[in-house]
Amino acid sequence: MKKAITLRDIASRLGVNVSTVSRALNPETRSMLASEQVARVVAVAEALGYYPNRLAYALKKRKSFTVGAIIPDLNNPVFPPMMRGIQDELDAQGYTLVAANSDHDLAYEKRAVNKMRESLVDGLILATARLGDVQVDQCLQNGLPLVLINRTTNQPGVNAVVNDDAAGISLAVEHLVGLGHRRIAHIGGVLDTSTGVERCKAFLESVGSCGAEFDDRLLVFVDQVTPEAGKKAFAMLLGRNTGFTAVVAMSDQVAIGCLDMMKEEGLRCPEDVSITGFNDIPLVDRIDPPLTTLSIQSRRMGSEAAKLLIHVMGNKEHSGEVIKLQPSLVIRSSTGVPSIGSSSEAVKQAVVNQSRIR
Amino acid sequence: MKKAITLRDIASRLGVNVSTVSRALNPETRSMLASEQVARVVAVAEALGYYPNRLAYALKKRKSFTVGAIIPDLNNPVFPPMMRGIQDELDAQGYTLVAANSDHDLAYEKRAVNKMRESLVDGLILATARLGDVQVDQCLQNGLPLVLINRTTNQPGVNAVVNDDAAGISLAVEHLVGLGHRRIAHIGGVLDTSTGVERCKAFLESVGSCGAEFDDRLLVFVDQVTPEAGKKAFAMLLGRNTGFTAVVAMSDQVAIGCLDMMKEEGLRCPEDVSITGFNDIPLVDRIDPPLTTLSIQSRRMGSEAAKLLIHVMGNKEHSGEVIKLQPSLVIRSSTGVPSIGSSSEAVKQAVVNQSRIR
Repeated sequence: MKKAITLRDIASRLGVNVSTVSRALNPETRSMLASEQVARVVAVAEALGYYPNRLAYALKKRKSFTVGAIIPDLNNPVFPPMMRGIQDELDAQGYTLVAANSDHDLAYEKRAVNKMRESLVDGLILATARLGDVQVDQCLQNGLPLVLINRTTNQPGVNAVVNDDAAGISLAVEHLVGLGHRRIAHIGGVLDTSTGVERCKAFLESVGSCGAEFDDRLLVFVDQVTPEAGKKAFAMLLGRNTGFTAVVAMSDQVAIGCLDMMKEEGLRCPEDVSITGFNDIPLVDRIDPPLTTLSIQSRRMGSEAAKLLIHVMGNKEHSGEVIKLQPSLVIRSSTGVPSIGSSSEAVKQAVVNQSRIR
Repeated sequence: MKKAITLRDIASRLGVNVSTVSRALNPETRSMLASEQVARVVAVAEALGYYPNRLAYALKKRKSFTVGAIIPDLNNPVFPPMMRGIQDELDAQGYTLVAANSDHDLAYEKRAVNKMRESLVDGLILATARLGDVQVDQCLQNGLPLVLINRTTNQPGVNAVVNDDAAGISLAVEHLVGLGHRRIAHIGGVLDTSTGVERCKAFLESVGSCGAEFDDRLLVFVDQVTPEAGKKAFAMLLGRNTGFTAVVAMSDQVAIGCLDMMKEEGLRCPEDVSITGFNDIPLVDRIDPPLTTLSIQSRRMGSEAAKLLIHVMGNKEHSGEVIKLQPSLVIRSSTGVPSIGSSSEAVKQAVVNQSRIR
């Protein structure tokens, strides 16, 4: 890179003092000078390619106008719209975002938080929080402004913007019960996250209050939110040889895995088993069959998290504010009226197949 | 945020000189001290919660270990894997990424580049390049290390990592001709980008060399890479009342728009018209019908771009290196043998519908 142009360079070109140049280029002080003088300085600054040095400013004021965000994986389609929302709001407020992917690796998360502190970020947005999260504790102890997004923790005093997970799952269960389903399974998880726990609790409560049947063989958990994990979980449900006509999956990715397993077993969706997802990620409206799911306000979640963080950074307080955004049920073709009897012939055959594999 | 711990704080706690603490904490100088002394300093530094101040270092060395990336829109599924690849490589090399979305807005791009220069980024990765791009010129003039990704420009001396767009389109055309298609349409664009121009040129050349028929009514352009634009473009093709049995779309998003229009018109894919896409974005393998498309090495494109940029930053040279990554054809169900005759009865009816609308 070429040597940067300094205030001194501009001053010597114009034959004025450095302090005059400095005043002319600072919007807060430029009224001290004649407007023609300001115009001359600005013109020369532009001609020479001068730009202010944000690092020097940041170091002096101990404010970098930079915010860090750590998400599990940008390749998970849930996160890009959230990041976009964060970026939009930060950008509008003059902040810069630095982001990292943790791939669910605790040691990496720790390093990433430390590195961001070393770069003097003014605050952090974490989409990686687990229940009882160590990094969250660290940030709270160090007084680093912090907002959690998508997931929260059980630690007090934490700011977060999350989905109303319970409301979302209730909508799915009520929809299925309304269609006539009585034996509904849940593929839940990941159990050290607020999303996993809240969705599972809400499922159990909704099933109870809607008058659907329940036994614990209808509950299975994934430890990763992927189609592969969803596929295995669906196979496990089949292998238990308990009748079910619908599955409430904790996410779209898991629901997609269920559809994969159904296709392999020759099961029809929704005729044999209805499936619901969570998140409404791009293109699930066009898969076969189009997925009934909970549409979340991802981009808004990002912008609300950034707004809340800017507020916290300005007020130096950790108020423990939790904003819950409402999901809405989008009914598509993966849910329908259940077959007569608690499970169809095709399901019984699939059960036999899966029992044999196990 | 609490007042940061300084080297002075550690020194006074241990009763040693600041220079000793500095040497002990710097891996390059710590061999000058006894290892027990280094261990004592490190232990106290950790206990007090000391972390190095990267901004001070950056300002002193005029090297921020930060790289900027500007992409059109993180919500376009093409970009997250590229960003992930960029982040992974930068992270492995100790760099931090700051990113911005331009939404194809030239004025915004200019502001974003300026802001990144003010933050003293060591280099830039741009996914926003147009042919004859003003920002690219600016960066070249200012000697700011630069690598373009996904698209390149016609300016000499620019470093870029792109798809071999021509090879990709040839694969699609050859596949369709191999199936028996003779009248193949192309939905191309955006024409001020290298991807738009290269893909269109490659289409015309491949159609010529494969012996397929061609007239210019088989060519239509989008000005945005969205399903909506693809839908309109497909309607325009129908409205021209020229027979065609296949469409090579310049991207998956555009191909999805074609499928939407076909569904509306009661056309079957691939029986009435075969469709190919470009990029292989997530879930196009599961839409109805699963899309035949060109799988690109998105994540690798990101990591190669970051590697090339780090090389350029280290060598202070703009070598004009262009790395082309090979796409591969993924054949799914949206392409098949054409109906007998140049267009089916259903297509003729759709043509009538679209002519009426126009």
